[in-house]
Amino acid sequence: MILFENVRFLDTTLRDGEQTPGVALTSKDKVDIATKLDELGVNVIEAGSAITSEGERESIRAVVAEGLNAEICSYCRIMKPDVDYALACDVDSIHLVAPVSDLHINVKLKKDREAVRKMAIETTEYAKEHGLIVELSGEDASRADVDFLKSLYNDGVDAGADRLCYCDTIGLLVPEKAELIFSDICSAVKAPVSIHCHNDFGLGTANTIAALRGGAQQAHVTINGIGERAGNTALEEVVMTIEWLYKHKTGINTKEIFKTSRLVSRLTGIPVAPNKALTGGNAFTHEAGIHVHGLLADTATYEPIKPEVLGRERKIVLGKHAGKSSVTLAVKEMGFEVDDSQLHEILNRVKELGDHGKKVTDADLQAITDTVLNIQREAKVVLEEYTVVSGNRVTPTASVKLKVEGKEVVEAGIGDGPVDAAFASIKKGISGIADVQLEEYHVDAISGGTDALVEVLVKLSKDGKMVTSRGSRTDIVMASVEAVLNGINRLI
Amino acid sequence: MILFENVRFLDTTLRDGEQTPGVALTSKDKVDIATKLDELGVNVIEAGSAITSEGERESIRAVVAEGLNAEICSYCRIMKPDVDYALACDVDSIHLVAPVSDLHINVKLKKDREAVRKMAIETTEYAKEHGLIVELSGEDASRADVDFLKSLYNDGVDAGADRLCYCDTIGLLVPEKAELIFSDICSAVKAPVSIHCHNDFGLGTANTIAALRGGAQQAHVTINGIGERAGNTALEEVVMTIEWLYKHKTGINTKEIFKTSRLVSRLTGIPVAPNKALTGGNAFTHEAGIHVHGLLADTATYEPIKPEVLGRERKIVLGKHAGKSSVTLAVKEMGFEVDDSQLHEILNRVKELGDHGKKVTDADLQAITDTVLNIQREAKVVLEEYTVVSGNRVTPTASVKLKVEGKEVVEAGIGDGPVDAAFASIKKGISGIADVQLEEYHVDAISGGTDALVEVLVKLSKDGKMVTSRGSRTDIVMASVEAVLNGINRLI
Repeated sequence: MILFENVRFLDTTLRDGEQTPGVALTSKDKVDIATKLDELGVNVIEAGSAITSEGERESIRAVVAEGLNAEICSYCRIMKPDVDYALACDVDSIHLVAPVSDLHINVKLKKDREAVRKMAIETTEYAKEHGLIVELSGEDASRADVDFLKSLYNDGVDAGADRLCYCDTIGLLVPEKAELIFSDICSAVKAPVSIHCHNDFGLGTANTIAALRGGAQQAHVTINGIGERAGNTALEEVVMTIEWLYKHKTGINTKEIFKTSRLVSRLTGIPVAPNKALTGGNAFTHEAGIHVHGLLADTATYEPIKPEVLGRERKIVLGKHAGKSSVTLAVKEMGFEVDDSQLHEILNRVKELGDHGKKVTDADLQAITDTVLNIQREAKVVLEEYTVVSGNRVTPTASVKLKVEGKEVVEAGIGDGPVDAAFASIKKGISGIADVQLEEYHVDAISGGTDALVEVLVKLSKDGKMVTSRGSRTDIVMASVEAVLNGINRLI
Repeated sequence: MILFENVRFLDTTLRDGEQTPGVALTSKDKVDIATKLDELGVNVIEAGSAITSEGERESIRAVVAEGLNAEICSYCRIMKPDVDYALACDVDSIHLVAPVSDLHINVKLKKDREAVRKMAIETTEYAKEHGLIVELSGEDASRADVDFLKSLYNDGVDAGADRLCYCDTIGLLVPEKAELIFSDICSAVKAPVSIHCHNDFGLGTANTIAALRGGAQQAHVTINGIGERAGNTALEEVVMTIEWLYKHKTGINTKEIFKTSRLVSRLTGIPVAPNKALTGGNAFTHEAGIHVHGLLADTATYEPIKPEVLGRERKIVLGKHAGKSSVTLAVKEMGFEVDDSQLHEILNRVKELGDHGKKVTDADLQAITDTVLNIQREAKVVLEEYTVVSGNRVTPTASVKLKVEGKEVVEAGIGDGPVDAAFASIKKGISGIADVQLEEYHVDAISGGTDALVEVLVKLSKDGKMVTSRGSRTDIVMASVEAVLNGINRLI
């Protein structure tokens, strides 16, 4: 057997991922995500658990109705009503989950092994009679008696199960153990076995890879590794590990990974950590001077893969570790030509800001460069005044007085809240010279007190040109206004 | 050799962690984190890179001045000025980093192997002459020629190096390879070897553990796995894997892990993903009904370790997957007694909200329970009216009209921004009946547009009693006001 040949992916973002506390996806959300997963090329989409509620069944039916390439699957317990509900959703397959550790069997289910065996066999037979593909899964398999597990698997296959699955329900596996267990189990059972890992100790990806090395033929994954507690194994990590570290194609359309990650994050509301492997905001961002120096020579020095492979871009940012190379690059990108002594002075000032614990934003760098080059830059749009009123009995309203190319403009706007109203008024104020679109609005999580610093990042576009700019204030409205005006002045 | 005997930890949160793009820590921040790391029991604290700037040296000196138990270390390149700057900070040791792959040597440094060897030897000798502990480190070791690497290590040891380090600079290792390489290298060199991993493919923890199994004696780690790009190996994951999956004590004071994680997140501004292993917000949060059912019987069913081990607490939240057990528990915690039919009705309404893609907040559950129990709860503080004005030329000002225990109160307040002003006015408004403190104010990251839903979470206290409450609106000020009033009414 060639390693990683024909690995299949069952994506459970819509089931185990949706079980993330606080996440609830609408039917439309589920269809949007399923469509994207299909485009990505996953083999099976576990769309939900049909027994959960009528709303859940509507969502599963909506996914089924899309007619995607992927097999659509519902989670079921080893009970006939669960299968009936799955059948009512017209899914292709079920992920039929039987508790297999004594702890789960005795304490949770208050039954014994033989009762579970009987339920598993009967439910498998019932599902097969009704034409479903059945993946019989052992919950908490990593704490189960291996002989019991194998005999249950074989009974399941005799009852018609098409695939089997080993769930490391609370993330207790370690890679060398996962590989050994799968070598053992896969040689003892007569159907392909899936690996389903949780990430409680941060080993989900490694355990999944190890199980595939041991003989597993399908990996259960979620986008961004979302899921209960510390989540499930991340699709992107398993796919890229196989493709780039083991040099084996997976059939996954990797260029869609970043977009899929962003879609799932947006619809579930679960943020992706900046330092998340592959899909995190910083995964292809570089600051330290020496690294940018290396990158300029060859991106392979500090990047394992090119960001384009995942459909994303490299970012260079400045800070206290900035070196000559990164400042040169950033200053050049802003359209300045500087000589060596100017560069040295700019660099010193950037580091000084960094030493004071301050992030160096694009606006900071621009201001520093302006000062050093002694340029009196005439911003085209200057904020003279803005006032915002909001409350529970007033329509959020903002007024701005702007100097637009030297001419005074006063405008007012309304919105869903004070920030939205302020944006509306600015957009109107500059409509005479440019039609600027707000493409993205992001605020970093605010922690501490109500007087904490708020970092606002906006992405603005005009005629296909796009800029990102930031504002940073203790007042979220003011930070937003600052970010937008910075962006506008760089766009026009 | 017993596996994982005497594993040491070099924590580089303050050096590699601080190289996270956008992070800049002040001297005080560095001292606060170093003190906490010392309390945690790490062996070595890499406090920074002395050559970076004067501000960086001040920070390192400030950490040294604390007189902690841990060895304090500075990063150095294989250049004497770097060592001089480290000496000027009075550190105990240096992490002396030599590029060892041909890519790094030729392309980045534009030198050859023998030049690097010479620089490494000379810098090691120089540092040893000045009394420093030297850990000689191979950058990009995972792409280096192994024979060259071993001979460089041995030359380094001959020159006086106390320890060696293997850096998987761009995260290319896989566990089985890491273990083999370390078995090979550790038997070929005459000093202890550290493992330094990056997490570009999500394998940092597994590779670190594998290297320790292969013979590494020290792991380089950061809190929350922060660091450049996808970050470094997370301390908490390596420590808990060794302690709980390999059943071997590490000497780390695990009860301080969660607090340390929060401190680092707060001071660096790098959020921890909800699904981060061990330290993520959801790592010990449970929603799905069936899981809570299992947890009530025995927490081991769905938790690998008890949250108290890390100094944190379990959370139960409701949503579309809520079952009878979780709703019973939550309703009971709010002080209600419900019968079976009432419980059934509450559960249905919770699921209905979930099906509409809505998170079920405490306030939602309270409202649902109130309705089902037909209780007309008299909120003590009712918001009649609030108005906020802010702008760049006005002092953020808010006025509120409240009904406090039936009596109308009108107050105004000012603040750093509209939210701060609104809080000030409410606090004044209720001062007649209670002195409520805002202990924590948190806003989840906002993504999408300026009309995106904003989730505000506040922690309020009064006379030692603490409540957490939420508000969720498209208007951040209104969401904040709602959260505070919900909290106040539950406190008094």
